[in-house]
Amino acid sequence: MPVIARKALKPRTKPAEVRRDDILRAATSLFVAKGVGTTTIDEIATRAEVAKGTFYLYFTSKEDVVAALRERFVAGFRARILSAIEACPPDDWTGRLKSFVGAGIAAYLDDHQLHDVVFHDHRPDQRRIKGDNPLLGDLSALLAAGTKAGAWSVDDPDLAAIVLFNGLHGAVDHAIECGVRDGSELAANLSALFLRMVRPK
Amino acid sequence: MPVIARKALKPRTKPAEVRRDDILRAATSLFVAKGVGTTTIDEIATRAEVAKGTFYLYFTSKEDVVAALRERFVAGFRARILSAIEACPPDDWTGRLKSFVGAGIAAYLDDHQLHDVVFHDHRPDQRRIKGDNPLLGDLSALLAAGTKAGAWSVDDPDLAAIVLFNGLHGAVDHAIECGVRDGSELAANLSALFLRMVRPK
Repeated sequence: MPVIARKALKPRTKPAEVRRDDILRAATSLFVAKGVGTTTIDEIATRAEVAKGTFYLYFTSKEDVVAALRERFVAGFRARILSAIEACPPDDWTGRLKSFVGAGIAAYLDDHQLHDVVFHDHRPDQRRIKGDNPLLGDLSALLAAGTKAGAWSVDDPDLAAIVLFNGLHGAVDHAIECGVRDGSELAANLSALFLRMVRPK
Repeated sequence: MPVIARKALKPRTKPAEVRRDDILRAATSLFVAKGVGTTTIDEIATRAEVAKGTFYLYFTSKEDVVAALRERFVAGFRARILSAIEACPPDDWTGRLKSFVGAGIAAYLDDHQLHDVVFHDHRPDQRRIKGDNPLLGDLSALLAAGTKAGAWSVDDPDLAAIVLFNGLHGAVDHAIECGVRDGSELAANLSALFLRMVRPK
Protein backbone atom coordinates (compact mmCIF):
# COMPACT_ATOMS: atom_id res chain seq x y z
CA MET A 1 0.00 0.00 0.00
CA PRO A 2 1.56 3.31 -1.01
CA VAL A 3 2.30 5.83 1.73
CA ILE A 4 -0.04 8.42 0.26
CA ALA A 5 -3.01 6.06 0.60
CA ARG A 6 -2.23 5.39 4.28
CA LYS A 7 -2.12 9.11 4.91
CA ALA A 8 -5.59 9.45 3.41
CA LEU A 9 -6.86 6.69 5.73
CA LYS A 10 -5.32 8.19 8.88
CA PRO A 11 -5.47 11.98 8.46
CA ARG A 12 -3.22 13.94 10.85
CA THR A 13 -5.61 16.85 10.89
CA LYS A 14 -9.00 16.76 12.61
CA PRO A 15 -12.19 16.99 10.54
CA ALA A 16 -13.40 20.54 10.01
CA GLU A 17 -16.43 20.12 12.27
CA VAL A 18 -14.28 18.87 15.16
CA ARG A 19 -11.82 21.71 14.70
CA ARG A 20 -14.65 24.25 14.62
CA ASP A 21 -16.07 22.70 17.77
CA ASP A 22 -12.67 22.91 19.51
CA ILE A 23 -12.56 26.64 18.76
CA LEU A 24 -16.12 27.19 19.99
CA ARG A 25 -15.45 25.28 23.23
CA ALA A 26 -12.22 27.19 23.86
CA ALA A 27 -14.00 30.49 23.24
CA THR A 28 -16.87 29.53 25.57
CA SER A 29 -14.49 28.79 28.47
CA LEU A 30 -12.63 32.05 27.98
CA PHE A 31 -15.77 34.17 27.48
CA VAL A 32 -17.43 32.74 30.60
CA ALA A 33 -14.24 33.09 32.69
CA LYS A 34 -13.12 36.59 31.66
CA GLY A 35 -15.79 38.13 29.43
CA VAL A 36 -15.98 38.62 25.66
CA GLY A 37 -14.42 42.09 25.73
CA THR A 38 -11.09 41.09 27.27
CA THR A 39 -10.67 37.78 25.38
CA THR A 40 -8.40 37.96 22.33
CA ILE A 41 -8.43 35.78 19.22
CA ASP A 42 -4.84 34.79 20.09
CA GLU A 43 -6.07 33.39 23.41
CA ILE A 44 -8.90 31.47 21.72
CA ALA A 45 -6.51 29.97 19.15
CA THR A 46 -3.96 29.00 21.83
CA ARG A 47 -6.57 27.34 24.01
CA ALA A 48 -8.08 25.50 21.03
CA GLU A 49 -4.55 24.40 20.02
CA VAL A 50 -4.82 25.83 16.52
CA ALA A 51 -2.77 28.41 14.66
CA LYS A 52 -4.26 31.88 14.42
CA GLY A 53 -4.52 31.36 10.65
CA THR A 54 -6.61 28.25 11.27
CA PHE A 55 -8.99 30.29 13.43
CA TYR A 56 -9.64 32.55 10.43
CA LEU A 57 -10.53 29.53 8.26
CA TYR A 58 -13.61 29.10 10.47
CA PHE A 59 -14.49 32.56 11.81
CA THR A 60 -14.04 36.11 10.58
CA SER A 61 -13.92 37.76 14.03
CA LYS A 62 -14.62 37.34 17.73
CA GLU A 63 -18.17 38.60 17.17
CA ASP A 64 -18.57 35.91 14.51
CA VAL A 65 -17.72 33.33 17.20
CA VAL A 66 -20.29 34.88 19.56
CA ALA A 67 -22.91 34.71 16.77
CA ALA A 68 -22.12 31.02 16.18
CA LEU A 69 -22.37 30.31 19.91
CA ARG A 70 -25.69 32.19 20.03
CA GLU A 71 -27.08 30.11 17.17
CA ARG A 72 -25.94 26.92 18.89
CA PHE A 73 -27.32 28.07 22.26
CA VAL A 74 -30.78 28.75 20.81
CA ALA A 75 -30.79 25.49 18.81
CA GLY A 76 -29.79 23.45 21.89
CA PHE A 77 -32.34 25.23 24.06
CA ARG A 78 -35.13 24.54 21.55
CA ALA A 79 -34.10 20.90 21.08
CA ARG A 80 -34.16 20.30 24.83
CA ILE A 81 -37.64 21.81 25.18
CA LEU A 82 -39.08 20.12 22.10
CA SER A 83 -37.79 16.70 23.15
CA ALA A 84 -39.38 17.15 26.61
CA ILE A 85 -42.68 18.05 24.93
CA GLU A 86 -42.47 15.14 22.49
CA ALA A 87 -42.01 12.73 25.41
CA CYS A 88 -45.63 13.47 26.43
CA PRO A 89 -48.65 11.70 24.91
CA PRO A 90 -50.05 13.82 22.06
CA ASP A 91 -53.28 14.66 23.93
CA ASP A 92 -51.64 15.46 27.28
CA TRP A 93 -51.80 19.24 26.88
CA THR A 94 -51.18 19.94 30.55
CA GLY A 95 -48.09 17.74 30.39
CA ARG A 96 -46.91 19.48 27.23
CA LEU A 97 -47.13 22.94 28.73
CA LYS A 98 -45.50 21.73 31.95
CA SER A 99 -42.69 20.20 29.86
CA PHE A 100 -42.11 23.48 28.06
CA VAL A 101 -41.90 25.33 31.38
CA GLY A 102 -39.82 22.71 33.20
CA ALA A 103 -37.32 22.13 30.40
CA GLY A 104 -37.09 25.85 29.67
CA ILE A 105 -36.31 26.69 33.30
CA ALA A 106 -33.80 23.83 33.64
CA ALA A 107 -32.03 24.71 30.39
CA TYR A 108 -31.74 28.38 31.32
CA LEU A 109 -30.56 27.65 34.88
CA ASP A 110 -27.93 25.21 33.56
CA ASP A 111 -26.57 27.52 30.89
CA HIS A 112 -27.19 31.04 32.13
CA GLN A 113 -23.50 31.90 32.04
CA LEU A 114 -23.36 30.95 28.37
CA HIS A 115 -26.68 32.76 27.84
CA ASP A 116 -25.15 35.95 29.20
CA VAL A 117 -22.11 35.54 26.95
CA VAL A 118 -24.06 35.04 23.73
CA PHE A 119 -26.57 37.80 24.51
CA HIS A 120 -24.01 40.11 26.11
CA ASP A 121 -24.39 42.80 23.47
CA HIS A 122 -28.18 42.77 23.43
CA ARG A 123 -29.46 46.17 24.42
CA PRO A 124 -32.99 47.45 25.09
CA ASP A 125 -33.20 49.06 21.65
CA GLN A 126 -32.49 45.78 19.83
CA ARG A 127 -36.11 44.73 19.69
CA ARG A 128 -35.94 43.24 16.21
CA ILE A 129 -33.32 40.68 17.28
CA LYS A 130 -35.51 39.61 20.18
CA GLY A 131 -38.44 39.33 17.77
CA ASP A 132 -36.56 36.69 15.77
CA ASN A 133 -36.71 34.30 18.74
CA PRO A 134 -37.86 30.92 17.31
CA LEU A 135 -39.08 29.77 20.74
CA LEU A 136 -41.96 32.25 20.44
CA GLY A 137 -43.13 30.40 17.33
CA ASP A 138 -42.84 27.00 19.07
CA LEU A 139 -44.82 28.23 22.06
CA SER A 140 -47.48 29.91 19.93
CA ALA A 141 -47.91 26.70 17.90
CA LEU A 142 -48.31 24.68 21.12
CA LEU A 143 -50.95 27.10 22.46
CA ALA A 144 -52.81 27.10 19.13
CA ALA A 145 -52.77 23.29 18.94
CA GLY A 146 -54.11 22.87 22.49
CA THR A 147 -56.84 25.41 21.75
CA LYS A 148 -57.77 23.65 18.49
CA ALA A 149 -57.98 20.36 20.40
CA GLY A 150 -60.46 21.97 22.82
CA ALA A 151 -58.17 21.67 25.86
CA TRP A 152 -57.41 25.36 26.14
CA SER A 153 -58.93 28.68 25.22
CA VAL A 154 -56.38 31.15 23.86
CA ASP A 155 -57.67 34.07 21.78
CA ASP A 156 -54.29 35.29 20.55
CA PRO A 157 -51.61 32.56 20.71
CA ASP A 158 -48.82 34.92 19.57
CA LEU A 159 -49.56 37.41 22.37
CA ALA A 160 -49.93 34.63 24.95
CA ALA A 161 -46.60 33.16 23.78
CA ILE A 162 -44.87 36.53 24.32
CA VAL A 163 -46.33 36.78 27.83
CA LEU A 164 -45.38 33.20 28.73
CA PHE A 165 -41.86 33.41 27.28
CA ASN A 166 -41.06 36.77 28.87
CA GLY A 167 -42.74 35.75 32.11
CA LEU A 168 -40.65 32.60 32.29
CA HIS A 169 -37.48 34.50 31.37
CA GLY A 170 -38.08 37.11 34.07
CA ALA A 171 -38.94 34.49 36.69
CA VAL A 172 -35.72 32.55 36.01
CA ASP A 173 -33.69 35.78 36.04
CA HIS A 174 -35.12 36.46 39.49
CA ALA A 175 -34.34 32.88 40.60
CA ILE A 176 -30.73 33.17 39.38
CA GLU A 177 -30.41 36.48 41.23
CA CYS A 178 -31.66 34.73 44.40
CA GLY A 179 -29.16 31.87 44.00
CA VAL A 180 -31.75 29.18 43.15
CA ARG A 181 -30.11 26.06 41.68
CA ASP A 182 -33.09 23.68 41.44
CA GLY A 183 -35.87 25.05 39.28
CA SER A 184 -38.49 22.37 40.06
CA GLU A 185 -40.53 24.41 42.54
CA LEU A 186 -40.50 27.41 40.22
CA ALA A 187 -41.56 25.13 37.34
CA ALA A 188 -44.56 23.87 39.32
CA ASN A 189 -45.66 27.38 40.34
CA LEU A 190 -45.17 28.88 36.88
CA SER A 191 -46.97 25.98 35.18
CA ALA A 192 -49.95 26.45 37.50
CA LEU A 193 -50.05 30.16 36.66
CA PHE A 194 -49.78 29.56 32.90
CA LEU A 195 -52.36 26.75 32.92
CA ARG A 196 -54.83 29.12 34.57
CA MET A 197 -54.21 31.65 31.82
CA VAL A 198 -55.08 29.15 29.07
CA ARG A 199 -57.88 27.17 30.74
CA PRO A 200 -61.28 27.31 29.02
CA LYS A 201 -63.66 30.09 30.04
CA MET B 1 -34.91 100.71 47.75
CA PRO B 2 -31.19 99.93 47.67
CA VAL B 3 -29.81 98.18 44.59
CA ILE B 4 -28.60 95.17 46.56
CA ALA B 5 -32.12 94.44 47.82
CA ARG B 6 -33.53 94.57 44.26
CA LYS B 7 -30.90 92.08 43.17
CA ALA B 8 -31.98 89.70 45.92
CA LEU B 9 -35.61 90.04 44.77
CA LYS B 10 -34.79 89.40 41.11
CA PRO B 11 -31.94 86.87 41.02
CA ARG B 12 -30.04 86.71 37.73
CA THR B 13 -29.32 83.02 38.21
CA LYS B 14 -31.98 80.35 37.98
CA PRO B 15 -32.90 78.25 41.03
CA ALA B 16 -30.81 75.09 41.36
CA GLU B 17 -33.73 72.79 40.54
CA VAL B 18 -34.50 74.66 37.31
CA ARG B 19 -30.84 74.63 36.28
CA ARG B 20 -30.61 70.91 36.99
CA ASP B 21 -33.75 70.35 34.94
CA ASP B 22 -32.29 72.36 32.03
CA ILE B 23 -29.25 70.09 32.02
CA LEU B 24 -31.38 66.92 32.16
CA ARG B 25 -33.59 68.12 29.30
CA ALA B 26 -30.58 69.07 27.17
CA ALA B 27 -29.00 65.68 27.85
CA THR B 28 -32.24 63.85 26.98
CA SER B 29 -32.50 65.56 23.58
CA LEU B 30 -28.88 64.80 22.74
CA PHE B 31 -28.97 61.20 24.02
CA VAL B 32 -32.14 60.41 22.05
CA ALA B 33 -30.84 62.12 18.90
CA LYS B 34 -27.29 60.77 18.79
CA GLY B 35 -26.86 58.20 21.57
CA VAL B 36 -25.17 58.40 24.97
CA GLY B 37 -21.79 57.20 23.71
CA THR B 38 -21.19 60.01 21.23
CA THR B 39 -22.61 62.85 23.36
CA THR B 40 -20.03 64.92 25.24
CA ILE B 41 -20.43 66.89 28.46
CA ASP B 42 -19.41 69.99 26.47
CA GLU B 43 -22.38 69.47 24.17
CA ILE B 44 -24.77 68.99 27.10
CA ALA B 45 -23.50 72.18 28.78
CA THR B 46 -23.74 74.20 25.55
CA ARG B 47 -27.28 73.04 24.85
CA ALA B 48 -28.36 73.70 28.46
CA GLU B 49 -26.71 77.17 28.20
CA VAL B 50 -24.53 76.62 31.25
CA ALA B 51 -20.75 76.71 31.72
CA LYS B 52 -19.03 73.35 31.91
CA GLY B 53 -18.11 74.16 35.52
CA THR B 54 -21.80 74.63 36.29
CA PHE B 55 -22.53 71.17 34.87
CA TYR B 56 -20.15 69.72 37.46
CA LEU B 57 -22.01 71.46 40.29
CA TYR B 58 -24.92 69.15 39.54
CA PHE B 59 -23.45 65.97 38.05
CA THR B 60 -20.16 64.13 38.39
CA SER B 61 -20.22 62.50 34.93
CA LYS B 62 -22.31 61.62 31.89
CA GLU B 63 -23.25 58.31 33.54
CA ASP B 64 -24.42 60.28 36.57
CA VAL B 65 -26.81 62.16 34.25
CA VAL B 66 -28.05 58.84 32.81
CA ALA B 67 -28.65 57.55 36.37
CA ALA B 68 -30.63 60.70 37.25
CA LEU B 69 -32.70 60.33 34.07
CA ARG B 70 -33.32 56.67 34.90
CA GLU B 71 -34.54 57.54 38.38
CA ARG B 72 -36.84 60.20 36.94
CA PHE B 73 -38.08 57.84 34.21
CA VAL B 74 -39.04 55.13 36.72
CA ALA B 75 -40.64 57.66 39.11
CA GLY B 76 -42.70 59.20 36.27
CA PHE B 77 -43.71 55.78 34.97
CA ARG B 78 -44.87 54.67 38.42
CA ALA B 79 -46.73 57.92 39.10
CA ARG B 80 -48.61 57.62 35.82
CA ILE B 81 -49.68 54.04 36.55
CA LEU B 82 -50.56 54.66 40.20
CA SER B 83 -52.69 57.70 39.36
CA ALA B 84 -54.58 55.65 36.73
CA ILE B 85 -55.21 52.96 39.36
CA GLU B 86 -56.27 55.48 42.00
CA ALA B 87 -58.86 56.91 39.59
CA CYS B 88 -60.79 53.61 39.91
CA PRO B 89 -63.26 52.88 42.74
CA PRO B 90 -61.44 50.95 45.50
CA ASP B 91 -63.39 47.74 44.89
CA ASP B 92 -63.13 47.78 41.07
CA TRP B 93 -60.35 45.22 40.84
CA THR B 94 -60.88 44.57 37.14
CA GLY B 95 -60.61 48.30 36.49
CA ARG B 96 -57.48 48.54 38.61
CA LEU B 97 -55.68 45.80 36.73
CA LYS B 98 -56.84 47.24 33.40
CA SER B 99 -55.52 50.65 34.50
CA PHE B 100 -52.14 49.19 35.35
CA VAL B 101 -51.94 47.53 31.94
CA GLY B 102 -53.31 50.46 29.94
CA ALA B 103 -51.22 53.14 31.66
CA GLY B 104 -48.13 50.96 31.57
CA ILE B 105 -48.45 50.34 27.83
CA ALA B 106 -49.18 53.99 27.07
CA ALA B 107 -46.30 55.26 29.21
CA TYR B 108 -43.83 52.85 27.61
CA LEU B 109 -45.02 53.58 24.06
CA ASP B 110 -44.78 57.33 24.69
CA ASP B 111 -41.30 57.24 26.20
CA HIS B 112 -39.59 54.22 24.70
CA GLN B 113 -36.79 56.33 23.22
CA LEU B 114 -36.01 57.72 26.67
CA HIS B 115 -36.43 54.19 28.09
CA ASP B 116 -33.73 52.93 25.72
CA VAL B 117 -31.43 55.80 26.69
CA VAL B 118 -31.71 55.28 30.43
CA PHE B 119 -31.43 51.49 30.22
CA HIS B 120 -28.87 51.52 27.39
CA ASP B 121 -26.17 49.89 29.49
CA HIS B 122 -28.37 47.20 30.98
CA ARG B 123 -27.04 43.80 30.00
CA PRO B 124 -28.42 40.27 30.49
CA ASP B 125 -26.07 39.64 33.42
CA GLN B 126 -27.33 42.66 35.37
CA ARG B 127 -30.14 40.78 37.03
CA ARG B 128 -29.84 42.51 40.39
CA ILE B 129 -30.54 45.91 38.88
CA LYS B 130 -33.69 44.56 37.25
CA GLY B 131 -34.68 43.03 40.59
CA ASP B 132 -34.74 46.51 42.15
CA ASN B 133 -37.66 47.48 39.92
CA PRO B 134 -40.22 49.15 42.23
CA LEU B 135 -43.05 48.44 39.76
CA LEU B 136 -42.83 44.76 40.71
CA GLY B 137 -43.66 45.69 44.29
CA ASP B 138 -46.59 47.87 43.19
CA LEU B 139 -47.99 45.10 41.00
CA SER B 140 -47.49 42.41 43.65
CA ALA B 141 -49.31 44.60 46.22
CA LEU B 142 -52.22 45.10 43.80
CA LEU B 143 -52.50 41.35 43.16
CA ALA B 144 -52.32 40.57 46.90
CA ALA B 145 -54.97 43.19 47.73
CA GLY B 146 -57.39 41.89 45.07
CA THR B 147 -56.86 38.35 46.34
CA LYS B 148 -57.42 39.42 49.95
CA ALA B 149 -60.65 41.14 48.89
CA GLY B 150 -61.84 37.86 47.35
CA ALA B 151 -61.90 39.18 43.77
CA TRP B 152 -58.89 37.19 42.58
CA SER B 153 -57.02 34.04 43.43
CA VAL B 154 -53.25 34.46 43.24
CA ASP B 155 -51.10 31.96 45.13
CA ASP B 156 -47.80 33.80 44.74
CA PRO B 157 -48.28 37.53 44.05
CA ASP B 158 -44.53 38.15 43.62
CA LEU B 159 -44.22 35.48 40.92
CA ALA B 160 -47.42 36.60 39.19
CA ALA B 161 -46.12 40.20 39.26
CA ILE B 162 -42.89 39.11 37.52
CA VAL B 163 -44.89 37.28 34.84
CA LEU B 164 -47.25 40.21 34.28
CA PHE B 165 -44.51 42.85 34.24
CA ASN B 166 -42.22 40.91 31.90
CA GLY B 167 -45.16 39.81 29.77
CA LEU B 168 -46.30 43.40 29.37
CA HIS B 169 -42.74 44.59 28.67
CA GLY B 170 -42.23 41.94 25.98
CA ALA B 171 -45.61 42.62 24.38
CA VAL B 172 -44.90 46.35 24.12
CA ASP B 173 -41.40 45.66 22.76
CA HIS B 174 -43.05 43.59 20.04
CA ALA B 175 -45.61 46.34 19.38
CA ILE B 176 -42.84 48.98 19.07
CA GLU B 177 -40.97 46.68 16.68
CA CYS B 178 -44.16 46.40 14.58
CA GLY B 179 -44.62 50.18 14.51
CA VAL B 180 -47.74 50.25 16.72
CA ARG B 181 -48.50 53.78 17.97
CA ASP B 182 -51.84 53.27 19.72
CA GLY B 183 -51.65 50.70 22.50
CA SER B 184 -55.39 50.46 23.26
CA GLU B 185 -56.03 47.18 21.41
CA LEU B 186 -52.97 45.62 23.00
CA ALA B 187 -54.13 46.87 26.41
CA ALA B 188 -57.54 45.19 25.97
CA ASN B 189 -56.02 41.88 24.86
CA LEU B 190 -53.34 41.83 27.55
CA SER B 191 -55.83 42.77 30.28
CA ALA B 192 -58.09 39.89 29.22
CA LEU B 193 -55.15 37.48 29.40
CA PHE B 194 -54.00 38.74 32.81
CA LEU B 195 -57.53 38.74 34.25
CA ARG B 196 -57.88 35.09 33.29
CA MET B 197 -54.65 34.34 35.12
CA VAL B 198 -55.92 35.86 38.38
CA ARG B 199 -59.62 34.88 38.28
CA PRO B 200 -60.82 32.62 41.11
CA LYS B 201 -60.56 28.87 40.60
